[in-house]
Order: sequence, then structure tokens, then C-alpha cells
Amino acid sequence: MKIEHIGIAVLNLESSIPLYEKIFQTNCYKIEEVESEKVKTAFFKIGDCKIELLQATDESSTIHKFIEKKGEGIHHIAFNVDNVNNQINRLIKSGIESIHQQAKEGADNKLIAFLHPKSTGSVLMELCQDKEIE
Amino acid sequence: MKIEHIGIAVLNLESSIPLYEKIFQTNCYKIEEVESEKVKTAFFKIGDCKIELLQATDESSTIHKFIEKKGEGIHHIAFNVDNVNNQINRLIKSGIESIHQQAKEGADNKLIAFLHPKSTGSVLMELCQDKEIE
Repeated sequence: MKIEHIGIAVLNLESSIPLYEKIFQTNCYKIEEVESEKVKTAFFKIGDCKIELLQATDESSTIHKFIEKKGEGIHHIAFNVDNVNNQINRLIKSGIESIHQQAKEGADNKLIAFLHPKSTGSVLMELCQDKEIE
Repeated sequence: MKIEHIGIAVLNLESSIPLYEKIFQTNCYKIEEVESEKVKTAFFKIGDCKIELLQATDESSTIHKFIEKKGEGIHHIAFNVDNVNNQINRLIKSGIESIHQQAKEGADNKLIAFLHPKSTGSVLMELCQDKEIE
């Protein structure tokens, strides 16, 4: 496992991107909308990891609900693994609950799954792997 | 800048360490008490980054207050920089508030400073550098 990115929930990418560019001294290198998740994302490269800003595009988005409840801030940690489905199976067998029972498509050309924070110390964890090019 | 570690506030290291060992499939490699911060910390190596679990050792600890308000979960992101004091000066000049006006001693043989989350999108950010061996 390695840390692939840290997801940060923001109200507004337009004002958050220049703020984080100032802090990190690096430019946002990609903006991508993930319609299925009702989010717009912006990525920064920080060493070997990424920071992903997430803005809700609809009130039904989990990011909208997160910000309503907790305000802006760190939303999740994503870990790169060789095979998301293998890891989900391993974790479920060891008593960890997974929100997704199998990998699904995510932003940034990845297959992803989220573990349930109630079994991971209230830390929302994403597992991800690069999609194989067909 | 690179991500040095992610800090996670926990109620009890004794129960959290085996949980995270199970998730990460790696053993906690160091437990360290930082008396000045009133915390006990446990470290995991995840690729080039670390996960730091933080348990309060006293009710006056910021970790105790964080958990009382928000519950267990992700507490901060720490970024490795060449020189913490230079970065604090740069950030203050560009309008970012810093909790510490100059670097101080932290866990894991580092010099550290925290930026004020009210000027960093509600994300608590730590800057750190390795202490020079004298």
C-alpha cells in the first residue's frame, strides 16, 4: 500500500484552487468532473502523492452532505493497491466493512472502493488501482 | 514539499494499533510520547509516507479537545519542507496565518510548525523538517 492521494472537501474550487496553489507553490494540474459521484475535482502533485480537492455539483453528493455536517476539510485518504478487489476480500474476511463490495470507476482513471469509516476508526479510506489500458 | 505523514486522532492506541496493522498489513514501528504536546504517538510506514496515530495523555491536549468536538478521525497533514522557518515567513507574507511563528520541537526528531486552519480551508497543516544532528 502507498498513499495515492488525500481528498479535501471544498465549497468552491474557484476560490480553493488559488489558495492551495499559494500554499503548495505548485499549480493544479487537472480538473475533472465525476458525474456519477456528483463532484468536480482538482488535483495537485505533492512529491509522490496527490491532493484532490472535491466540490459537490449537486446537493445529493456525499461531499455536499459532508460539508453540511462537518464543514470544509480533509475528507478521505486514498491508498494505492495492486488489486482493489483482492484487498476488499481480504479486509472483509478480517472483519472490516466495505462500502463497495467490488471496485468501481473513479476519477483520475482509477478503479476504486471505499471502506466503511465505522470499521476504520472513523477515517474514510479509499482503495484504488490504475485502470488497465485495454 | 512532500507529504511526510497524516495524523489520525484516536481514543486509545492499544486498540487502534492492531486495527491499523490489520488494514495496512504492516506493523507499527515506533511509539513515542511527546510530553510537551500531551500526546502518545504511534507510527506506520506506508510507502514513502507515514501514518501517525495520536492519543491524548491529558484532557488539556489538543487531541482530547479535537476528539470531544469531532470524534476520532483524520487530524492533520504534515508536509516535509527544507526549512520550516523560511516557509512560515513566505506563507505569512502571502496572507496565511501560522499558529507558530517559528519552528519548535516535535515528535520523530523533527522541527515543526502548524498553520492556522482558518486560513488553509479548515485543513490543519503541519510543516516539518528533520532536525540537524549536532
